[in-house]
Amino acid sequence: MSASSRINRQVVLKARPQGIPQAEHFELIETAAPEPAEGQILVRNEFLSVEPAMRGWVNAAANYSEPVPIGGVMRSLAAGQVIASRHPDYRAGDAVCGWFGWQDYAAVPVSAVDTRITDDRIRLSAWLGVLGLNGLTAYFGLLDVGQPKPGETVLVSTAAGSVGSCVGQIAKLMGCRAVGIAGGPVKTAQCTDAFGFDAAIDYKAGNLEAALDAACPEGIDVYFDNTSGAISDAVLSRLRVGARVVICGTASIGNWDPFPQGPRVERHLLVKRARMQGFIVLDYQARYPQARAALSHWVHEGWIRHQEDILEGLESAPDAIAGLYRGENLGKRLIRVHQD
Amino acid sequence: MSASSRINRQVVLKARPQGIPQAEHFELIETAAPEPAEGQILVRNEFLSVEPAMRGWVNAAANYSEPVPIGGVMRSLAAGQVIASRHPDYRAGDAVCGWFGWQDYAAVPVSAVDTRITDDRIRLSAWLGVLGLNGLTAYFGLLDVGQPKPGETVLVSTAAGSVGSCVGQIAKLMGCRAVGIAGGPVKTAQCTDAFGFDAAIDYKAGNLEAALDAACPEGIDVYFDNTSGAISDAVLSRLRVGARVVICGTASIGNWDPFPQGPRVERHLLVKRARMQGFIVLDYQARYPQARAALSHWVHEGWIRHQEDILEGLESAPDAIAGLYRGENLGKRLIRVHQD
Repeated sequence: MSASSRINRQVVLKARPQGIPQAEHFELIETAAPEPAEGQILVRNEFLSVEPAMRGWVNAAANYSEPVPIGGVMRSLAAGQVIASRHPDYRAGDAVCGWFGWQDYAAVPVSAVDTRITDDRIRLSAWLGVLGLNGLTAYFGLLDVGQPKPGETVLVSTAAGSVGSCVGQIAKLMGCRAVGIAGGPVKTAQCTDAFGFDAAIDYKAGNLEAALDAACPEGIDVYFDNTSGAISDAVLSRLRVGARVVICGTASIGNWDPFPQGPRVERHLLVKRARMQGFIVLDYQARYPQARAALSHWVHEGWIRHQEDILEGLESAPDAIAGLYRGENLGKRLIRVHQD
Repeated sequence: MSASSRINRQVVLKARPQGIPQAEHFELIETAAPEPAEGQILVRNEFLSVEPAMRGWVNAAANYSEPVPIGGVMRSLAAGQVIASRHPDYRAGDAVCGWFGWQDYAAVPVSAVDTRITDDRIRLSAWLGVLGLNGLTAYFGLLDVGQPKPGETVLVSTAAGSVGSCVGQIAKLMGCRAVGIAGGPVKTAQCTDAFGFDAAIDYKAGNLEAALDAACPEGIDVYFDNTSGAISDAVLSRLRVGARVVICGTASIGNWDPFPQGPRVERHLLVKRARMQGFIVLDYQARYPQARAALSHWVHEGWIRHQEDILEGLESAPDAIAGLYRGENLGKRLIRVHQD
């Protein structure tokens, strides 16, 4: 079967959402699979990534990447196989991970490849999660921005998620006490039982302040903030002197237009000589190989465990981001589009 | 005249304020001047310091120093002369700066001495301002926390004040563009004319956002924040990628109980990979000598200019802090209690 006779299903952006993208903002269309141009490769996707950051990629507001155009294929990392190559460095059968979009087939320049996968000890899907942007986010956010020291208390929100669970486990590797915040008893049990957190707090159970006091009796040295909102407000009054707050995501904020109000942070930062710092993993690209070497070693040794939440088929893609924000996933959310 | 026959006028804390301390929270009393105990020195104060941070020193809420007790002499740095010594390292006539309080005479252990003044090229009062906590605050806050690089835009609020004016001048020495925010045309003119800021913004003139856009067309790399509040909210949406916000004071916030609300900062920090960091100059004590060497060199060379706002007599002390928050001072506020 030649590439041109293949159908390429694509999920395209139909309308620009205000806030969190829902199923109705996307459309599943069918086109003919592309042919690779000179210098390009043709990739057949096996797994597509779903991330909270996708909310930013489809919003029109100035952000750290150009918005996906209306009618364009949804931007996404994906993992798959090269099935045709017109570039001398790649050949059919190579496993690759890169910016291939929410579709079956992608004809792309090799600059779209993020990782060429040569370490087959770890399954392909992991390169979109614990060895992908999620693990890299945890690695650079915690180690570079949070700078945890042995014996310190590291608190992370959305702790059962793909970033949060990795943050907690790296914190443990660094000799810290790891405390997670997650929604519901299933996720908190996962934090302590599967990921080895010292304690986990169910923010949906109410009485968050008392739960934080019990789990972090000496206060918090590093707060890896994936949520913002009421959870962060409760955490900020419990920072220790010299604390670092790593701003990684704002999952609890549905809309930043207009900016929601919250208690001012300056007094906490001043009295505690504390720091809040935002970061974006894409700024650390030059150091991805170093981080992936560490992460793949830790995964291979079993020191970092990871969990996947796999949706079947491209038709599950349009609602997949909204589902993340509804908190329905357990682990890294992926979409499986082909099986070998 | 023996010390015991001298009258010692003292300003004591009469009632604990909510928010900014006013004249009625203090009382001027008269006692007999103390005698130095073994190991102590007796200091006759010449200048007393008045600082915005004093608000925190008299508030009951947990802060970075123990609150001044009701009935206690108001804590303050002061500069004066040793008039009697029962410590082998000091003798009458030595000029000293230290924690001597709002009073005429202080009998203190030598640990209360912050600086022994041996450089008489610079007048005594300067050791409470540009060579005292104000200059040190500017030095460590800008250089250590703000980390300005040549060519960057450094913005400072309360720019005509003793800290702000020093921040702007150090920024210029470091090769930065310095922009000040101050209240009223007199202070903004002082910023550009006396202190060499590249531009100054009168926040009381209205249209702060447009004024910021005009003065900082490429955005702000370092914001030295002495105010919090509406000024900071306008600044935060104009940060450049990688910006540093130095949280030094919160002059525009009258009361932190309950915490006032403001627009959430997380999105700015995330999109701009920016940092907000609180700091307290007292944490840098080990490095004061290094900073004072630099500052006194700059002052002596005329590269850093400073201005003083001197109130006459201890009776002006009770209202002096409130006056700072009313913005009535031009330069470092001091109280002169004795003249040689």
